[in-house]
Amino acid sequence: MLQSKLFTKMEKTPPRDEESLNAKLLVQAGFVQKLMAGVYTFLPLGLRVLNKIENIVREEMNNAGAIEMLMPGLQPKENWEATKRWDTFDALLKTKSKFGGEYAMGPTHEEVVYPLLKKHLASYRDFPVAVYQIQTKFRDEKRAKSGLLRGREFRMKDCYSYHASDEERDKYYDVMKNSYMNIFKRLELNAVPTNAGGGTFSELSMEFQVLCAAGEDVIYLCENCNVAVNKELSGDLAAKCPKCKDLTNEKKSIEVGNIFPLKETFAKNFNLVFKDNTGKEKLVSAGCYGLGTSRVMGAIAEVKNDDFGLIWPKSVAPYDIHLVYLKSNDRNVMAEAEKFYRKCLEADAGILFDDRDDVSAGSKFAESDLIGIPLRVVISDRTLEKESAEIKKRNEKNAGLVKLDDLDSYISKDS
Amino acid sequence: MLQSKLFTKMEKTPPRDEESLNAKLLVQAGFVQKLMAGVYTFLPLGLRVLNKIENIVREEMNNAGAIEMLMPGLQPKENWEATKRWDTFDALLKTKSKFGGEYAMGPTHEEVVYPLLKKHLASYRDFPVAVYQIQTKFRDEKRAKSGLLRGREFRMKDCYSYHASDEERDKYYDVMKNSYMNIFKRLELNAVPTNAGGGTFSELSMEFQVLCAAGEDVIYLCENCNVAVNKELSGDLAAKCPKCKDLTNEKKSIEVGNIFPLKETFAKNFNLVFKDNTGKEKLVSAGCYGLGTSRVMGAIAEVKNDDFGLIWPKSVAPYDIHLVYLKSNDRNVMAEAEKFYRKCLEADAGILFDDRDDVSAGSKFAESDLIGIPLRVVISDRTLEKESAEIKKRNEKNAGLVKLDDLDSYISKDS
Repeated sequence: MLQSKLFTKMEKTPPRDEESLNAKLLVQAGFVQKLMAGVYTFLPLGLRVLNKIENIVREEMNNAGAIEMLMPGLQPKENWEATKRWDTFDALLKTKSKFGGEYAMGPTHEEVVYPLLKKHLASYRDFPVAVYQIQTKFRDEKRAKSGLLRGREFRMKDCYSYHASDEERDKYYDVMKNSYMNIFKRLELNAVPTNAGGGTFSELSMEFQVLCAAGEDVIYLCENCNVAVNKELSGDLAAKCPKCKDLTNEKKSIEVGNIFPLKETFAKNFNLVFKDNTGKEKLVSAGCYGLGTSRVMGAIAEVKNDDFGLIWPKSVAPYDIHLVYLKSNDRNVMAEAEKFYRKCLEADAGILFDDRDDVSAGSKFAESDLIGIPLRVVISDRTLEKESAEIKKRNEKNAGLVKLDDLDSYISKDS
Repeated sequence: MLQSKLFTKMEKTPPRDEESLNAKLLVQAGFVQKLMAGVYTFLPLGLRVLNKIENIVREEMNNAGAIEMLMPGLQPKENWEATKRWDTFDALLKTKSKFGGEYAMGPTHEEVVYPLLKKHLASYRDFPVAVYQIQTKFRDEKRAKSGLLRGREFRMKDCYSYHASDEERDKYYDVMKNSYMNIFKRLELNAVPTNAGGGTFSELSMEFQVLCAAGEDVIYLCENCNVAVNKELSGDLAAKCPKCKDLTNEKKSIEVGNIFPLKETFAKNFNLVFKDNTGKEKLVSAGCYGLGTSRVMGAIAEVKNDDFGLIWPKSVAPYDIHLVYLKSNDRNVMAEAEKFYRKCLEADAGILFDDRDDVSAGSKFAESDLIGIPLRVVISDRTLEKESAEIKKRNEKNAGLVKLDDLDSYISKDS
């Protein structure tokens, strides 16, 4: 991408109408733009990050045998009455047709996926089935001041698994847990598996929590074992690690995912039943696996930054390489920059090329740090004198010179 | 994909609660499932088709220099008041927070994209800019009985271009027109460019209309020139072709896309101005380019079918190859089928493998015709006797035998 063609303008200072660090950084650097509290447009750079996060999630869901589909946001009131959540689901955003119908704007999809599967699940032979979607969700939030961490509209992956027995479901729960560990590893995000069971559903309930002072959750973390217990769950009881029994530390954190057994709860509401191998009718046992993809983007921004801007992990960076050309009267400077740019494009490498002629070197460097692409490559009069380019990793202090002939080794195929 | 793992069950007969052919076919074959009138879930097969359509659109938009972003569905009332459309936009679906705010559920995005660009467009040097998104939209439709052709919730690509002069805008209009012609060519959909100007905006306004008895539009078509005029526009005046002046025929059609100049209309509402090269402040001139991606899927289903089911063009088929194994006591039959399946996967070919053991040959063939994948490959006792597989194209009558050793030539990389 030529930066001269990128219409979004970066701001010199963080936006004044944002409280959260993630929104300050993401808005200032031109990744997202606020439409109103809790509702953001993903600008071109931001959409690239979101897509990369969602593709990682998609790959791991597919690897776990889950099948993707896409359910509607608009959901009939009757389905929410069937689960008795129309009046009790706290943040349910409702809408009314002028022709009479009332609808929920889906904050979750049990009310859609259960009735949908009634048509497809009949016999024990039909199990297990795991379906997921990556989709836009809505919540009627009172306060929405945390940027991408708590949106009125947000992106989410939700997966639902269906089983002929609780044992089969518990086995799949482990598959999903493993899948989540893979996802967060690839996102380079330390999301601590946190016991959150004992609530409405079950003791297997688990959250993935990213340590962060801006988080709304509080967990008891064991730093030896990298596991935790949600404070809400267990009060003072959890001052000891469930694994090594050492003392834990109270930490603020962001919940980026959760997995828990729904058991037969919603199956009862929708009479989702099947015939077991003796011909007996049984309720379907289910599990539910959520992951907020836009919240993950907010969480990464919140924890991966320094005084100069964002520091994206390579796996979700909008581009792998930020090529910065510094204005010169020597045409060779632009020619060398363009040559490297074309090579990257040919190799399908993700590259943003700051080809602008009307921006000072200082501003270019400041913007590059703000955007936070993992590798910066500068080509200028000064580097060309030494037949080199300057290379600097965003997460390292020092820059170095690399011979132009050796630059190719920095090109890798875009993830 | 193993068909045994595909949880969706096909129906023996078309659904009774659907009137439109596209919904009858797409529901029966397991591409979509109705949640309520005008609101459908895209099941795994359907999502694959939708994704392929949207990727073709995305590639052509990128080729035309438009930049992708993602705007919210939830839009503030104030923005719709600024354009005076809050009370007058006929099918606007509204929602109200219990904390007081009122929102539109976006049926279009002028009310978002104009205020967004105010931050980024200031000087004549900033133009042209074209942005687009592929996103979920909402409309409060009174009747929604046309399946994917008219949804209360639907998928759409909307693109907006911004220019420093009307001349520049008109030039970009031609780029977009060309882009739309490419898209419909790749979709193998004869979408007739149809003059629809003279309305609210301008004489350059054009729709792309697919001839179809189920369409809600009426056009005057010149079959020589493959151009048309919308009846709404010109009444009896359009009985003659605008190009060759021959007589035209009145035809029903489905509008799958439209491109038109917004001129300065919304720029006025939001005071979207820029400084020209003399420093004078001017209103930004804009164009708007819509394409209903889920409606395109409905239109393809509506016009590409026969008595046995759907007939997908290769570019958007859920899979390129439908490999059908017929149950056999000879293990070699399954072994040969699996061998071909693995080869396809290794070559990144799109393949659906009907590996089921508990379904009759007759049902398998009926389902295969219903799904409508371009190429069917059958491996059975009978074909293996001749060291062959049976090959049949969905859009041709006759099947033929191909030696197993020659099967590889039918493998192509998935689009």
